[in-house]
Amino acid sequence: MAGLGAPRDTGRVLVDGHPMRTIWPGEDGRTAEVIDQTKLPHALEVARLATVEDAALAIEGMVVRGAPLVGATAAYGMALGLLSDPSEAGLDAARNRLAETRPTAVNLAWALNEVTDAVVPLPVSERAGAAWTLAGQVCDDDVALCSAIGDHGLALIEEIWRDKGQRGVVDVLTHCNAGWLATVDWGTATAPIYKAHAAGIPVHVWVDETRPRNQGAGLTAWELGHVGVPYSVIVDSAGGHLMRTGRVDVCVVGSDRTTATGDVANKIGTYLKALAAHDNGIPFYVALPSPSIDWTMRDGLADIPIEERSPSEVTHIAGRDAGGSIVEVQLTPDGAAAANYGFDVTPARLVTGLITERGVCAASEEGLRSLFPDSI
Amino acid sequence: MAGLGAPRDTGRVLVDGHPMRTIWPGEDGRTAEVIDQTKLPHALEVARLATVEDAALAIEGMVVRGAPLVGATAAYGMALGLLSDPSEAGLDAARNRLAETRPTAVNLAWALNEVTDAVVPLPVSERAGAAWTLAGQVCDDDVALCSAIGDHGLALIEEIWRDKGQRGVVDVLTHCNAGWLATVDWGTATAPIYKAHAAGIPVHVWVDETRPRNQGAGLTAWELGHVGVPYSVIVDSAGGHLMRTGRVDVCVVGSDRTTATGDVANKIGTYLKALAAHDNGIPFYVALPSPSIDWTMRDGLADIPIEERSPSEVTHIAGRDAGGSIVEVQLTPDGAAAANYGFDVTPARLVTGLITERGVCAASEEGLRSLFPDSI
Repeated sequence: MAGLGAPRDTGRVLVDGHPMRTIWPGEDGRTAEVIDQTKLPHALEVARLATVEDAALAIEGMVVRGAPLVGATAAYGMALGLLSDPSEAGLDAARNRLAETRPTAVNLAWALNEVTDAVVPLPVSERAGAAWTLAGQVCDDDVALCSAIGDHGLALIEEIWRDKGQRGVVDVLTHCNAGWLATVDWGTATAPIYKAHAAGIPVHVWVDETRPRNQGAGLTAWELGHVGVPYSVIVDSAGGHLMRTGRVDVCVVGSDRTTATGDVANKIGTYLKALAAHDNGIPFYVALPSPSIDWTMRDGLADIPIEERSPSEVTHIAGRDAGGSIVEVQLTPDGAAAANYGFDVTPARLVTGLITERGVCAASEEGLRSLFPDSI
Repeated sequence: MAGLGAPRDTGRVLVDGHPMRTIWPGEDGRTAEVIDQTKLPHALEVARLATVEDAALAIEGMVVRGAPLVGATAAYGMALGLLSDPSEAGLDAARNRLAETRPTAVNLAWALNEVTDAVVPLPVSERAGAAWTLAGQVCDDDVALCSAIGDHGLALIEEIWRDKGQRGVVDVLTHCNAGWLATVDWGTATAPIYKAHAAGIPVHVWVDETRPRNQGAGLTAWELGHVGVPYSVIVDSAGGHLMRTGRVDVCVVGSDRTTATGDVANKIGTYLKALAAHDNGIPFYVALPSPSIDWTMRDGLADIPIEERSPSEVTHIAGRDAGGSIVEVQLTPDGAAAANYGFDVTPARLVTGLITERGVCAASEEGLRSLFPDSI
């Protein structure tokens, strides 16, 4: 727990009674610190990022993950790189190293562009300081974006609660972790849930475990538990049955990249839940801050690169054994072949609406244009 | 490996060079032996069933599983019960104990009825022997049914292969294990695959891992590997993406219970794959022997009981650690809530066809009536 002093009382989710963010500047002003998400839900540990390589490895190794948090970490990675080498060469090296870490989330490229555009006009001596300040601003902005998403999503949950005659609970299904841990604070898909819970609306969340890396079972369950929101972990195959039998009122997921036409790349399996929601007349919302919109793309299936990860994530899984140790176990026969696609693309036609920081719109070019007339 | 002498050379799948079935009568004529499927894919062990309670526990504990094999085991369980007490009371006790083991597969009730109907008219002294012979016949019949399903399904795969200009491979997606291990031999969904492979058609199988119990990753992968059919294990969320990107030619799954109108109860998650197949114009077939048709039911969603199993199957998983030991690890935070529905119901409208021992028909009352005019 060393190093947990600094970040406390800066965020909103209570960990051991103190509100935390997922990333924060170290007290030395030359490092960034993050919650090591590879250790959750079994241990809360902090990882210190001192170099651009540290930041790149943290993103590649999923010490940090989630499109907004990847963007925030990349911004700090640029600042760390410029601290050691603020020249054009240093800038290019930092940017190139960070850009290659993960292909699907567009926030990564967005953050790299933000920092680059800000520091290029500056004297070399001012670049690191400016980048450091901007990285902090990226984090603060993300908190504001997610909070605004929460407000707009809250209105949707309030409407469902009214439609149910304020009886029972509002059952929300979510996939993966588009939560506090995927952002700096609040989360995207979880922000409306947290605001509804705070407003006294009884919410229950069906948490897809989200194989292969189990971000639902490990991360979403962990953070919902810390906030006190009732939830049930389910296997990824269960959502369809729950929807057919009337146990889901609304689906809310996040997005790693959304096209200008409303197609949504998100964690593998999102498309299947959208199909089931559509088949059962259940609203399916995608919560996303505008930095995860890729205004250059119009066809999600054709254009968005889908990350392929190691087959070992499918053939093996890690968890805590009876003695409290984290161990990895093999699930398949020796020599089994496996394939591991990280994301899928949900076509706009299956998305009821996009919940952005500026409001809720249709998943279409017209819808996005209505909220972001300057961007499209 | 003790006890593996007897069953050898009676089946078709080669294990260590010898063809095996999944269940067989012990050499003493008073026990049945089964492959202990809870130990696969990491060890091949045989479990001996000497009493009706042994058979019931084997079904409940998923030492044996798969609707046809559950039926065959139940038939031997009745014979074991009658060996110890062939009276009316003994018959009722055996039947009641076995009937309560699992709710969804209808083959279980079918097998119990078959044995009961056969022995009730007999003198008490003849019941055990008759039941023993009938259990063997149930097994032999299952082999014949699955082989016939394989022949009819082979024709479908041959047609796909021709339509592809006999180039590349035929990519088949399957869910759970409707394989050799779910039956006595051949399997239901795998029978067409095995026959296509034997006929020289290059087949590749996308194997859904099938959480929570991973019958795909553990069992289907194991048996495909033994037969030499190329496969790739995928997480349950991946099939939709594979279908959207043109990497699935056909889906073939099994069924635990099919209504007279063609609704299909099968392992949780089957419905999501059927939705994706329908959305992408990919044929979705269900392979089933007629004992898994419930002619008394017309609305799968309303009528078929869906088993709820322990939440611990979601929160924990077992696998082999680096030292070769089978260990169970916890995936979720301490105290996490979870829900575990074992099956879902795929509506007939999403099923391209039913592959039965009598041929392929539409998933409808008319389709089933065309093949089974006396049953509907």
